[in-house]
Amino acid sequence: MHEPMNSRARILDAGDPLAGFRDRFIVPEGVIYLDGNSLGCLPKATPARMEQVVREEWGEGLIRSWNTADWIDWPLRIGGKIAPLIGASPHEVIACDSTSVNLFKLIAAALEMRPGRKTVLSEPGNFPTDLYMIEGLEKQGLAKRRLAPREQLACALDEDVALLLLTHAHYKTGEVFDMAAMTRAAHEAGALVLWDLSHSGGALPVDLGGCGADFAVGCGYKYFNGGPGAPAYAFVAERHLQSARQPLTGWFGHAAPFAFSDDYEPAPGIDRLQCGTPPILGLAALEVGVDLIGEIGVERLHAKSQALSEFLRQCLAERGVTLDLVSPADPAQRGSQLSFRHAEAYAICQALIARGVIGDFRDPDILRFGFAPAYLRFEDMAEAARHLAEVLESGEWQRDEFRERAAVT
Amino acid sequence: MHEPMNSRARILDAGDPLAGFRDRFIVPEGVIYLDGNSLGCLPKATPARMEQVVREEWGEGLIRSWNTADWIDWPLRIGGKIAPLIGASPHEVIACDSTSVNLFKLIAAALEMRPGRKTVLSEPGNFPTDLYMIEGLEKQGLAKRRLAPREQLACALDEDVALLLLTHAHYKTGEVFDMAAMTRAAHEAGALVLWDLSHSGGALPVDLGGCGADFAVGCGYKYFNGGPGAPAYAFVAERHLQSARQPLTGWFGHAAPFAFSDDYEPAPGIDRLQCGTPPILGLAALEVGVDLIGEIGVERLHAKSQALSEFLRQCLAERGVTLDLVSPADPAQRGSQLSFRHAEAYAICQALIARGVIGDFRDPDILRFGFAPAYLRFEDMAEAARHLAEVLESGEWQRDEFRERAAVT
Repeated sequence: MHEPMNSRARILDAGDPLAGFRDRFIVPEGVIYLDGNSLGCLPKATPARMEQVVREEWGEGLIRSWNTADWIDWPLRIGGKIAPLIGASPHEVIACDSTSVNLFKLIAAALEMRPGRKTVLSEPGNFPTDLYMIEGLEKQGLAKRRLAPREQLACALDEDVALLLLTHAHYKTGEVFDMAAMTRAAHEAGALVLWDLSHSGGALPVDLGGCGADFAVGCGYKYFNGGPGAPAYAFVAERHLQSARQPLTGWFGHAAPFAFSDDYEPAPGIDRLQCGTPPILGLAALEVGVDLIGEIGVERLHAKSQALSEFLRQCLAERGVTLDLVSPADPAQRGSQLSFRHAEAYAICQALIARGVIGDFRDPDILRFGFAPAYLRFEDMAEAARHLAEVLESGEWQRDEFRERAAVT
Repeated sequence: MHEPMNSRARILDAGDPLAGFRDRFIVPEGVIYLDGNSLGCLPKATPARMEQVVREEWGEGLIRSWNTADWIDWPLRIGGKIAPLIGASPHEVIACDSTSVNLFKLIAAALEMRPGRKTVLSEPGNFPTDLYMIEGLEKQGLAKRRLAPREQLACALDEDVALLLLTHAHYKTGEVFDMAAMTRAAHEAGALVLWDLSHSGGALPVDLGGCGADFAVGCGYKYFNGGPGAPAYAFVAERHLQSARQPLTGWFGHAAPFAFSDDYEPAPGIDRLQCGTPPILGLAALEVGVDLIGEIGVERLHAKSQALSEFLRQCLAERGVTLDLVSPADPAQRGSQLSFRHAEAYAICQALIARGVIGDFRDPDILRFGFAPAYLRFEDMAEAARHLAEVLESGEWQRDEFRERAAVT
């Protein structure tokens, strides 16, 4: 009875201009991977590049490679490649540290740029690390954390707010903020804005420059396919590059690191956001992923992501699966994901994983499917819908093995 | 005329119990590598391990590897392997972030544990990032940086000092602090102590526990052979694990990261020092290097390092090379290095590198030779002495090509 959806999937795949890119990734046999928003797939070019960096640049070049392989410039080079994918200029973005560490730097920088104001405003349920990093500065006595629900954010933007910190696409629901409008509202209140692009960079069109954003951070291991725990990136608008000072003043952010002076002087540009020695192995893998996303293009990825998620919804409807959609129904309002609420989301997610359909559970009751369109097919959507329908109909998720929580969920 | 030194080198190599370990590393053909204290050589086991992590764990396992490959536990597991090499218990050490970022965490933690005191005491000329990270907290208004020359440190330990931050083996001179004595002095003044082990961990016997040290950090890419920009490590003495709170409160330091709660609660143990998602590729390489150093043993490495450096001095003396030694003449007083002062140190260093003898220049006038005894031979010392003598006698370092400064020196 579901033949129509499978036929339609074949037609959509045949007409998909991005279909050829799937072959640029390793997608394990028998896996439908709906978790590229948590850890992107391995680009086929990555192992050879890693081998080269490890054997040639490290093994043979040794310390000389800081100059001869240009290691010293990788954070700027890779940042510069991420920049056009998020609406920034190359000299406004740097690849370094983790998203969390970069949040700390930029929250602190913003607070210093708004003397007399101490509040950092965000929303409850924002990705935890964003909230926790505000707390870290709060415990230092430097910030006050204020959380207001999405619809009350505008009202909460009073004159003590130094910074509005929001995640562009929500990690659980996928709901997307109107970046231009929220940035404008913050600026009108005299506040700065820091956007967390972890769930939008490399998947959705982002126009930091056009929106007048002040700061941004984002993740390298999701849609950019940089590998587990890949280095993150940070953006500072050009107009703030001179005034933004961050407290993690390590030697790689110094104007002249190899002068070995006792006193810190920040580098004049975005490299002042660096702290310790750049993680070369992680950066090497990240660059391959970023290059690939840059080659495909974010606009095309976004169009396909919307088509994939809408098609999945059709397939589910066709199979009579009615789940509580917590993502916006309008694809223009959501990130590259669909999330459903179900009291047994954890067990259902595990039962799907056992069938090779890898989605994500997010505590306490969210079943999340992410769409990394570079390597997903419409056929995968039809199959995922079939598996989900079968899991729900069969009740197989009720098995004990699917209910026992793993360390990482 | 120098045949005696070469003969002696052959005898020493033949009797060297660690000689076989050289074959466990890639040492490039024609290179005498005296810079393992800046970037350690590539262990032969690393490329295959990286390939496995990239292709199998990331490529095939994907997000599941956080559980199935135990990625989640790597920071603790690798920290636990470093621990016995620095006189710590496994649950006191974690591998994470960079040395600089870890310095920030522990300086801040110490300041909070000594309310009413704001001074962080160090010495001028300590490794720059150590001093800069104090400055970062100073600019936040949370610390006062005080620098006192080595011989005046004891007097400078007044009642405003919250923390004494010292590097165990000095990066330029190799001079080693008496860790037990300095720790005792700090404690008597009511201060805590943070040891930077970057130039001693994996090379010298370090007994953090026996010395009663409070905190320590160290580098993964020098003597631990973890690769360029490898993750660093951090130590917190067990008695402080409950009270030490650090401000980089990212989600991986949370007691329950996957509960995704809005409020931060630090993990009960050393994992509270984590911040963002662990850098798995960097950690994989680090673990191979740490395993190898653990297999050889720090005591044996230290004994050979002393023998190597003393033998190099003999070879230089034999060749009539008289350079201004800035390292302590007594090998028991210095780290695994010999440093010489020369106005033309940069050009001499470059001329040596052109001959395959890779040492290090440290601004403005230091020529530094590091001894990573796992892969160095006595024969290399005799040859390094020959090259250095020839470079000085021939004046070849005066060529323009050797005087032009590279980006990284």
